[in-house]
Amino acid sequence: MTLLDATVAAIWPVDPVAMAEARTRQDRLTKPRGSLGVLEDVAVRLAGVAAACPPPMPSPVALAIFAADHGVHAQGVSPWPQEVTAQMVANFAAGGAVANAFAAQVGASVTVVDVGVATDLTPVPGVVSRKVAYGTADLSEGPAMTREQALEALSAGIRTAGDLVAAGNRCLISGDMGIANTTASAALISLFTGRDPASATGRGTGVDDAMYQHKIDVVRRALAVNGYGEAGAVPQGQDSVLDALAAVGGFEHAAIAGFILGGAAARVPVILDGVIAGAAALVAAALAPDAAGYCVAGHRSAEPGHAVALAHLGLRPLVDLELRLGEGTGGLLAHPLVSAAVRVMHDVATFDSAGVADKER
Amino acid sequence: MTLLDATVAAIWPVDPVAMAEARTRQDRLTKPRGSLGVLEDVAVRLAGVAAACPPPMPSPVALAIFAADHGVHAQGVSPWPQEVTAQMVANFAAGGAVANAFAAQVGASVTVVDVGVATDLTPVPGVVSRKVAYGTADLSEGPAMTREQALEALSAGIRTAGDLVAAGNRCLISGDMGIANTTASAALISLFTGRDPASATGRGTGVDDAMYQHKIDVVRRALAVNGYGEAGAVPQGQDSVLDALAAVGGFEHAAIAGFILGGAAARVPVILDGVIAGAAALVAAALAPDAAGYCVAGHRSAEPGHAVALAHLGLRPLVDLELRLGEGTGGLLAHPLVSAAVRVMHDVATFDSAGVADKER
Repeated sequence: MTLLDATVAAIWPVDPVAMAEARTRQDRLTKPRGSLGVLEDVAVRLAGVAAACPPPMPSPVALAIFAADHGVHAQGVSPWPQEVTAQMVANFAAGGAVANAFAAQVGASVTVVDVGVATDLTPVPGVVSRKVAYGTADLSEGPAMTREQALEALSAGIRTAGDLVAAGNRCLISGDMGIANTTASAALISLFTGRDPASATGRGTGVDDAMYQHKIDVVRRALAVNGYGEAGAVPQGQDSVLDALAAVGGFEHAAIAGFILGGAAARVPVILDGVIAGAAALVAAALAPDAAGYCVAGHRSAEPGHAVALAHLGLRPLVDLELRLGEGTGGLLAHPLVSAAVRVMHDVATFDSAGVADKER
Repeated sequence: MTLLDATVAAIWPVDPVAMAEARTRQDRLTKPRGSLGVLEDVAVRLAGVAAACPPPMPSPVALAIFAADHGVHAQGVSPWPQEVTAQMVANFAAGGAVANAFAAQVGASVTVVDVGVATDLTPVPGVVSRKVAYGTADLSEGPAMTREQALEALSAGIRTAGDLVAAGNRCLISGDMGIANTTASAALISLFTGRDPASATGRGTGVDDAMYQHKIDVVRRALAVNGYGEAGAVPQGQDSVLDALAAVGGFEHAAIAGFILGGAAARVPVILDGVIAGAAALVAAALAPDAAGYCVAGHRSAEPGHAVALAHLGLRPLVDLELRLGEGTGGLLAHPLVSAAVRVMHDVATFDSAGVADKER
């Protein structure tokens, strides 16, 4: 049995009994029923994730940033040089990136995992090497990776989640770094939702009109050259899901999919960042449909494909502030909201205990 | 010179030089330009508020919950008994409300200010008495308060802001408690924006269809009986603003308007909660147009009038999760987002300092 098979087998649906109990508890607290809106749903689902009411606080919390390069960068789909992936890994390790600032703000640890950066990285604390290869092949000319590589990157994500949970973390946040990875995300989202590449492709970290049209064409070509025609069949079954991931994904997408599966298997919530995480979550849910219940959509990015992915997964984002940075920044921003939602279940008095009159019904 | 006049005179526009410097700094940080979306605007504006770049972190932070009762409750505009206002004040003091849980989560202190609860409250730590009266008069039958009472409640808010800033707080959050106060909010929003009461009135903490229609009628009657006809003229000038506030406002609305003015005069940002704060901010901006620049819209509540007020003020809410609780809960949830936005200005490396290649332009 592979690590993937064992992990998928360990994923159960979120617990309906704990969720029902949480919903009942919400209605007894000293606030108008339903007045915490979406946060009540978050608290109820976290009860289902932990199979406990009230659910444990989502702390300690760990951000894992999966970094990798992309062969499709050669097609000119990003205005940024490929070296920036490795340079930003060094910036994360030095504590100088936005993800570090946000992590410090919310009290999250930061682990960077090299799953496929194109160069050898100087070993430094906080950067774990689980490198599958020196970047993917160009997905617009054939499969980005082999099925074995896809499995290896998935396993890297599963192991990262396992290590972080074993270290005592009770909430995981996904992050990514990889110049050109919004192109692979668009291809995955198009393939796994059946939506046209034009609806799934965005401007990433800043492409102009001409480069944007070119990027859509590259995504179309990727689907066609890998035998998926006009984004026709949504992959079903483990083999065809792995083939689709290998064809148009990135190592960080595969790793984040594994990270989600690993969190779900451990009954720990995974706060998703942006469009890269959304694409990876489609893969994870295709491998294990119950995994989606363990995901909290941290935010909705400015990338149009992200909204497509979230709608397909049935997830509502908590933060919607036109971020388009990645690194896990949107997931980190959502963590205090998730914590606040859970804290209500622990701290708030009931109408009876506080001597507050209930609404006249 | 009254306290109000002195406060208004001390309010300057947010500083354009610091804001320009902040915008330039944002563009040198190791992230794609503009990739933090709305949070970049928040950081830039907070530089303007403090007249410093980078702006100070918005901590320590203090929530002030202004509590009062409303004569219009007698019209049957809420399904909750009026005693709940006083009971919830006791719940805040005991630490059992949602506002307490959220405040603990974000590290905010909680001060409750009685500006007009209908009963005498038992003196307890954390509850300050600045009571103007035992509730307002019924705004649907005449003015809710006298002009002197409106000024006294405004002054209570100014003094509260001054005390909290003097105690070292660098960010203020507005909160409210007052059964029936969404009715007064709707009347203020209708009056100060010129929008029809039907667009400004919502279901508060849970009214049914029949009570909702009745609530709109009560708001219409309030405007008519106080001589404002069909929500015609938007009040201009201090006297007519004070008259409008006195006619259809609540003591907590007046106090929050003063709280905003007090924060602005001290160059400290004020994170607004929901529809009650939105209505109060319209009053504050009518008294001192530059005060709006010191406000951050914490969230958008489920109340339709709140969106009307924010649009009129030109403020974009940070959190949008269908909350309709009040107490400052939406403002508290926004505080970590504001902190994260400012922290970026302090912690994040520049392209030069981190050795990261910039985008090819």
